[in-house]
Amino acid sequence: MRKATWGLLLLLTCAATCDQSGQNQDGEQKGPSRRGHVSVVVVGSTGDLAKKYLWQGFFNLYASQVGKGYSFSFYGGGLSPDGRGTPLLFEILKSQDCPVDVSDERCALVREQFLRLAQYRQLKTEEDYQALGQHIETQLKQEGMVEAGRLFYLSVPAFAYADIAQRVNRSCRPPGTAWLRVVLEKPFGHDSNSAQELATQLASSLKEDEMFRIDHYLGKQVVSQILPFRKGNRKLLKSIWNKHHIDRMEIVLKETLDAKGRISFYDQYGVIRDVIQNHLTEVMTLLTMSVPKNLTDCKEINRNKLKVFSALHQLDMPSAVLGQYQTYNSEVQLELNKTKDHFSLSPTYAGIAVHTTMPQFDGVPIFLVSGKLLDERVGYARITFKNNVFCAQDQTSITCRPKQIVFYIGQGQLQYPAILVSKNLFKPALVNNGWKEVIENDDTLLFGIPLSDYYIQTPVVQQEAYTELISQVFRGRRDHFVSAESLLASWKFWTPLLNSLKHTFPRPYPGGAANGNLLDFQLQGREVRFCSEALVNMIPQEKTESFQVMQGKYRSADMVSAWSKELVERLAHDLQEAAEESVQEGTPFHLALSGGSSPLALFKQLTQHHYAFPWWNTHVWMADERCVPPNEAESNFRTIHDHLLQHVHLPYFNIHPMPVQLNQRLCVEEDGGALVYEQDIARLVNSSSFSYVLLGVGFDGHTASLFPGNRLGSSGERLVALTESPLKPHQRMSLTFGAINRARRVSVLIMGKGKHELVTQLSRIKDTPDRWPITKIQPVNGRLVWYIDYDALLGQ
Amino acid sequence: MRKATWGLLLLLTCAATCDQSGQNQDGEQKGPSRRGHVSVVVVGSTGDLAKKYLWQGFFNLYASQVGKGYSFSFYGGGLSPDGRGTPLLFEILKSQDCPVDVSDERCALVREQFLRLAQYRQLKTEEDYQALGQHIETQLKQEGMVEAGRLFYLSVPAFAYADIAQRVNRSCRPPGTAWLRVVLEKPFGHDSNSAQELATQLASSLKEDEMFRIDHYLGKQVVSQILPFRKGNRKLLKSIWNKHHIDRMEIVLKETLDAKGRISFYDQYGVIRDVIQNHLTEVMTLLTMSVPKNLTDCKEINRNKLKVFSALHQLDMPSAVLGQYQTYNSEVQLELNKTKDHFSLSPTYAGIAVHTTMPQFDGVPIFLVSGKLLDERVGYARITFKNNVFCAQDQTSITCRPKQIVFYIGQGQLQYPAILVSKNLFKPALVNNGWKEVIENDDTLLFGIPLSDYYIQTPVVQQEAYTELISQVFRGRRDHFVSAESLLASWKFWTPLLNSLKHTFPRPYPGGAANGNLLDFQLQGREVRFCSEALVNMIPQEKTESFQVMQGKYRSADMVSAWSKELVERLAHDLQEAAEESVQEGTPFHLALSGGSSPLALFKQLTQHHYAFPWWNTHVWMADERCVPPNEAESNFRTIHDHLLQHVHLPYFNIHPMPVQLNQRLCVEEDGGALVYEQDIARLVNSSSFSYVLLGVGFDGHTASLFPGNRLGSSGERLVALTESPLKPHQRMSLTFGAINRARRVSVLIMGKGKHELVTQLSRIKDTPDRWPITKIQPVNGRLVWYIDYDALLGQ
Repeated sequence: MRKATWGLLLLLTCAATCDQSGQNQDGEQKGPSRRGHVSVVVVGSTGDLAKKYLWQGFFNLYASQVGKGYSFSFYGGGLSPDGRGTPLLFEILKSQDCPVDVSDERCALVREQFLRLAQYRQLKTEEDYQALGQHIETQLKQEGMVEAGRLFYLSVPAFAYADIAQRVNRSCRPPGTAWLRVVLEKPFGHDSNSAQELATQLASSLKEDEMFRIDHYLGKQVVSQILPFRKGNRKLLKSIWNKHHIDRMEIVLKETLDAKGRISFYDQYGVIRDVIQNHLTEVMTLLTMSVPKNLTDCKEINRNKLKVFSALHQLDMPSAVLGQYQTYNSEVQLELNKTKDHFSLSPTYAGIAVHTTMPQFDGVPIFLVSGKLLDERVGYARITFKNNVFCAQDQTSITCRPKQIVFYIGQGQLQYPAILVSKNLFKPALVNNGWKEVIENDDTLLFGIPLSDYYIQTPVVQQEAYTELISQVFRGRRDHFVSAESLLASWKFWTPLLNSLKHTFPRPYPGGAANGNLLDFQLQGREVRFCSEALVNMIPQEKTESFQVMQGKYRSADMVSAWSKELVERLAHDLQEAAEESVQEGTPFHLALSGGSSPLALFKQLTQHHYAFPWWNTHVWMADERCVPPNEAESNFRTIHDHLLQHVHLPYFNIHPMPVQLNQRLCVEEDGGALVYEQDIARLVNSSSFSYVLLGVGFDGHTASLFPGNRLGSSGERLVALTESPLKPHQRMSLTFGAINRARRVSVLIMGKGKHELVTQLSRIKDTPDRWPITKIQPVNGRLVWYIDYDALLGQ
Repeated sequence: MRKATWGLLLLLTCAATCDQSGQNQDGEQKGPSRRGHVSVVVVGSTGDLAKKYLWQGFFNLYASQVGKGYSFSFYGGGLSPDGRGTPLLFEILKSQDCPVDVSDERCALVREQFLRLAQYRQLKTEEDYQALGQHIETQLKQEGMVEAGRLFYLSVPAFAYADIAQRVNRSCRPPGTAWLRVVLEKPFGHDSNSAQELATQLASSLKEDEMFRIDHYLGKQVVSQILPFRKGNRKLLKSIWNKHHIDRMEIVLKETLDAKGRISFYDQYGVIRDVIQNHLTEVMTLLTMSVPKNLTDCKEINRNKLKVFSALHQLDMPSAVLGQYQTYNSEVQLELNKTKDHFSLSPTYAGIAVHTTMPQFDGVPIFLVSGKLLDERVGYARITFKNNVFCAQDQTSITCRPKQIVFYIGQGQLQYPAILVSKNLFKPALVNNGWKEVIENDDTLLFGIPLSDYYIQTPVVQQEAYTELISQVFRGRRDHFVSAESLLASWKFWTPLLNSLKHTFPRPYPGGAANGNLLDFQLQGREVRFCSEALVNMIPQEKTESFQVMQGKYRSADMVSAWSKELVERLAHDLQEAAEESVQEGTPFHLALSGGSSPLALFKQLTQHHYAFPWWNTHVWMADERCVPPNEAESNFRTIHDHLLQHVHLPYFNIHPMPVQLNQRLCVEEDGGALVYEQDIARLVNSSSFSYVLLGVGFDGHTASLFPGNRLGSSGERLVALTESPLKPHQRMSLTFGAINRARRVSVLIMGKGKHELVTQLSRIKDTPDRWPITKIQPVNGRLVWYIDYDALLGQ
C-alpha cells in the first residue's frame, strides 16, 4: 500500500499562500495561509461513474486548489481488498486529463502529487470505516495538521446509502469544528414513500446540511445559468415571461443509446424515474420559479422551488404518453434471466404535459420529454413565444419569425452548450465573465430559426458537470444541490402519475430515425395522446355520438348508464347543452350543485374539456350545505369552489353560497339564513324554478341534505330549510323537496360498486319519502334523469 | 322614349310555367303560373356602380327568372333628362355579359327581351316619382297584370337617401299586398349619431323590412358561406373553435390601388369608415357569432350579431395603428382644391386589434387590417391555431406544421375564392352542392403552408356579389343584409375609436413593395403599435426607469407626480411591488380599494399590463361603500367588480364586499354590518393592518366615506363605521381613520384639473379633520404617499 507523503505538499502550500488572487476569485474568505486539511473519500471509487467523472472532478479540484492553503488526502474506497483495489485505482487516477488552464509541465507535477496523496482502502465492514477514521486522525496528528473537513462521495447503489451513512457517522465524523460533507446521487427512492424512508434513515445519521444530493444536471453549465440568465435579463423578461407571451415550454433529453447493460437498474425505474423526476423536473423549476433576490441563498431557492411544486396541477394517466423501444423486452429477458413470456412495462420514452396553477403560467403547457434510442442525442429547454406581430406585407420578415429562448444543454446539432435568444426578441446580457458571444453566420435551422437569427452565448471553457459540483461541495455551496424538502415534493408530484401508469402498455418503437412520427403526441386540454400513425386529425372523435352509453328507465324516469368515464362525459355534455339552451332563450342558467365526491369527476370534465361552457350566463347555487364556515374543508361550497369555481370564469354576483354563517354563528334558526337564501332564489330565479339541479344519493337514501326522518312535510312552500344529518356535522341547510321538484331538470348521479346494493334496492321500492327521501324527487313540470354508472348498476 | 312591349313576355311566361324544377331549386313556393309583375327601379342607373355591377345583377336575375312565372319591367332612373339618359342606359344594358349557364343563342334572345323591358326615366323631382308611380299603375292595368312588388335600388350618394325614400313612400308605394323593397348601400352615416339620424329619417318613410342595406361583402361567395361552413363542420369545429385552440384571427382587405379620383368621398371617410366598419366587421361577426340554428332566420342572425357587438372590448387610441400613403396628401390638395399647407389626417391604412369578452374567444386577438397602395390586392379571413403537437423527431412533419382555416375572399395569389383548411386540422364537408373540391399539387406557400397541405374548396361557378345579393332581394331573403340594429351597434363600437384618432398623424408609407416592414405592427396586451423600422424589440422600454416622474413632498409626506398616464403606470408598478413583497414574506396582500372614478385608470393598467400581479395572494377589501345593493351600478363594489375583479383571477374567498345589505335592508345599525366587516378584518388581516389602502379625496376634503362633520372621534377603536354623506346616497359604510391609519401603506390618488384648487388648498392648511377629513390620514407605522397628476398639481 502506498502512503501519501506530505513534505512536498507543505512546501507547495507555503509557496502558494502569496497567491491571494485565486482565493478571491473563488470567493473564499481571506485568511491565514494554513486553511487546514481535507480528507476526500470516494466510496465506490473504481466504479463507472468514478472512473468517468468523479476522479476527474477531484483531480481538477486538487489542481485548482494546490497552493491555496488547503492540504488534501484522497481515499478511494471499495469492496475489493486493498491488494486488488490499489492497482485498479491507480490505473484510473493516472489517466485523468489535465485541466485546460494548466500547462503540461505543471500538470505532470500536480498529477504526481495527486497520486502520492491518494490511496485505496477497502471499505466494506464497520471495522473498515473505524480503521479509516483512526487512520485520518493519526495522519493529522503525525503531520500536525489542522483539520478543515471530510468529504465522502458515495458512488454506490442507493440501497447502501443508509448503512454507509451510519458508519460514517459512527466512525468517521470529524471532531471539533471541521466539517463533514456526504455526497449522494440519485436514485433517491423510487416513489414518495421510499424517498421519505430513505430521507428518514439518512437523517438519523447525517444532518441536512451535511448531505449534498447531486443532480448532475444542475452542474451542467447551461442549467446552472438559467437563474443568472433570468436575473440578468429580468427587466427585458419581465413583460414576456408569462402566459400572455409564452406559447409553451419544452424540456427535452433525447438519447440515442439503449439501456443494454444497465437493465437490472433501468427496468426497475424506467425513463420517468431515471431522468424526468429529477433532471427535467429541476430544469422546470428553474424556469418557472420566482428568481431569488440572492442567487446563492439556498434557503430562498428552496422556498421558491417548493412553491413551484405546490402550484403544479396533479398528473394522472392521461398526462403522459409512454413508449418502449422494440428490442427492450428481449434485453430484459436476457439480462434479467426471464422467460420468453415475460413482458416488461417499463417505459423507455415518455412525453408528459405539466401545467401549473401559478397565474403567471396558467395554461402554458410544459412538455417534459425523454427517451432512449431516439434519432439524436441532445438536451435542451426551449421557451417558444406567441407571435404578437402582424406582418402587413412580408410574412418572411424577421419580425414575423418564431421567437424563442433556448437553453441548449449540450450535444445535438450545435455540439456546444449555449443559451440562444431570437434576435427579434431581445439582446441578452452575458450571464457572466466566463461566457462569450458566438456569431454564427450559418443558415441551418435550429428549431425552425436560422442560427444567424439567434443571439448565442456559450461558456469560454466547457466544463463537466461533476467538476463544477465537486468544486461546489468543496466550497460548501449548496444552491446547486437538491434539498430533502424539494426532493420529497418532487416525488410527491410524480408518484400519483407513476402509480396510475403502472399497468399501461407503452407504445413500441423501432428506434432511431425509423421512429418517424410514431412518438409525436398532442395536447388536448391538459391531456396528451399519441398522434395517430396516419395523417393526424387534431380533433377528437365526436364523443356525443360514440358514447358507449345505455339508455333506459329507472324508477319510471329516464336513466343513462355507462362506464364512469363515459357517464361523466355524457352528463357534462348534457349539462352544457342545457346551459346553451338558456343562452339561446336569453335567460340565465341557474344550476344547483350538491356536495360530496361524485360531482368531482364532473367538475374536472367541465373545467378541462368544456371550454365553451357559458359560465358567464350561469348562476351557481347550492343544493345543500353543512353548517361549517364556508371556507373550511368540510364545506360543500369550499369543495365546489376549489374544484370548479376556481377554474372557470363567472361573475362574482353569480355565485351563491348558502348563508350558513350569520352573526358569527352557524345555522341558528333566528338568523333566518334559510329565508335569506330563499329570498335570493325568489329574486333571481324565474318562478324559483332552477334550470338544473344535480343531486346524489346517500346509502341511507338521503339526497341534498334531506335525510330519512327529517320532517319536511310541514315545510309547505318553503324552498330552503335547516335539516339534521345522522352524520357529523349534524346541522345542514338544504333545498326542500318543493324547491327541487320545481326545477326544469333534475339529475341524480350515482357511481361506484359501493352503491350497487342501494341502486338495486331503490329500483324495487315504492315512493317512501320518510324512509327513502330520494323517492320524493319528482319534478312537477321538469325532467328527472338518473345517471348511474355500470359499477353501481351492475355491481361489477 | 322606348316603351316596353309585353306580348313576347307573356308568351314566354306562359311557356315557362311548366319548368317547375327551377322554381324548386330556388326555394320558391310552388304556385299558380302567374306570380305577378315586378317593377325594378334603379335610381342612379348610369353611375359607376350600376354600370359595373348592378345592371349585370339585374340582367342575371332576369335571365334566371325568365319563364318562371314572374314578369318584369326595368326602369333606369337618373337626374339627366330622358333624351340624354336613354342612350346612355341602353349603351350600358347592351354590354352586359351572358350568365355562364346560358347558351349564346338563348342569351341573345333574353338580352333582346331585357332591353325591351327596360326604359330610362328622369327621377329628379317629386313629380318625376309621381309620374313613375302612375306609369307603373297604368301599365299594370293596361296589361291586366297582378303586381308582385317593386324593387328600388338607390345607387346614389347617401345624402339623397332620405328624400328619395320619402318620394318612393309618397308616390311609388304599391297598393294592396304587393311588396316594396328599397336597396341602400353604405355609407350609412359616418358615426353613431349620423347613422342614427339617417336610420330615423329612413324609418319615417320605410318599414325596416322594406329596407335592404347592402354590404356587398356579405354577397361574396366565400363570405356568404362562413356560417354554412361553421354549421356544416360544427362537430369538428366544436372542440377547436375557441381560445384554447385559436391563436388569432386576421381579417384583411389589401388593395393595390390608391384613392385617386375618389378623394372627395374618401377623404371624409378614410379606411376605417370605408371598409373596416362595414366589410371587415361583418366578417368578424360571422366568425365569432353563435351559429344560428336556422341559417335563414334573419332574426336569430341579427340577435346573435348584436351579442357579438355587445361583448366587444371598447376600442381607444392604442387599439389602432394608422398609415397614409405618401402621395395621398397632394392628391387631396389637387382634388379638393386645397392649398399646399393643407394636411389631411385621413388614414389610408389601418391595423386594429379587436378583443371580445366572450368567454369562448377571450384573449384571442382579432386583427382587422386594410389599406390602399399595398403590395397585393387580396381579401381574406384567416384563423390560425395554436400548435398543440410535440414532434419528437421530425419537426418538419405535417403534424407540426401550422394549422389554419382561411376564408379566401378573392384575388391575391390564389386568384379564386376558396375556403382552405390545413390537412392536419380536419377534412371539411363541402359547404353546398354549388362548391367543389380543388386538388392543388403546388408547393408554393400560402400563409406559410404549401398549397398541397390544404383541403381547398371553391364555388363551381364564380359569381359577383351583386348578382347574388340582387337575387336575394328579389327572393325577399334578408339574412345577408344589414339590419338597422346591427348597423347602429357597429357604429356604436367604432365611433369612440374614430373620435379618439381624430388628431392622430398617420405614418406615411411609400406604397407597394417599397412599404417593406413599415406597416407591420405588434400587439402588447390589447394595444398595438408599429414595429420600429430597425430590428424589432418586442419588449417595451422598461417603464419603471423611464418614468417622467417627479418626486417630492406634500403635506410632509412623500409625493409622486407625473402626467396622468405615467402616474397611473407608476402607481400600478408600486402596487405590484408591494404585493410581491407580501408574497416574498409569505403573507397575504390585503388591499383596500375606494370607489369613485379615479381608480378606473389604475384598474385598466393593472388588468392589461400587470399579468404577473399576484392576485392569488391578494385579498380585496372595500375602503368604503354606498348603502345600495352590491350589484347595483351605484355600488362601489360593483364598479370594482366590473373593472377589476371580473378581469383577474382571485379566489372567491379573497373578495370582501362590505355587508351593507343584511336582512333584506340597507345599513341598518342593528343589523351590525359594520361589526361583521370589522370581525372579518380582525380574523383575516394580521393586526387588522391592511397591506395597502388606496384612497381618493373629494372636493369637500372627504376620503373613503369619511365626510366633514361626521363625528367619528367617538368611534375609538372601531375599524368600520356607518357614516353620512352630504350627497346621495347619503348612507355609507366606511373604514375609520383608525383602520386606515393602521395600514402599512396608504396611497392617495388625485387626478385632473378640477382638483387643482383642492390640491393647492390642502397644501396650505393644518390638520383640521372635522373640516378636512383627509388631513387625518396619518399612518401610525405605515407610509403615506400622495399620487397627484400634473393637472391637479399644476392646474395646467
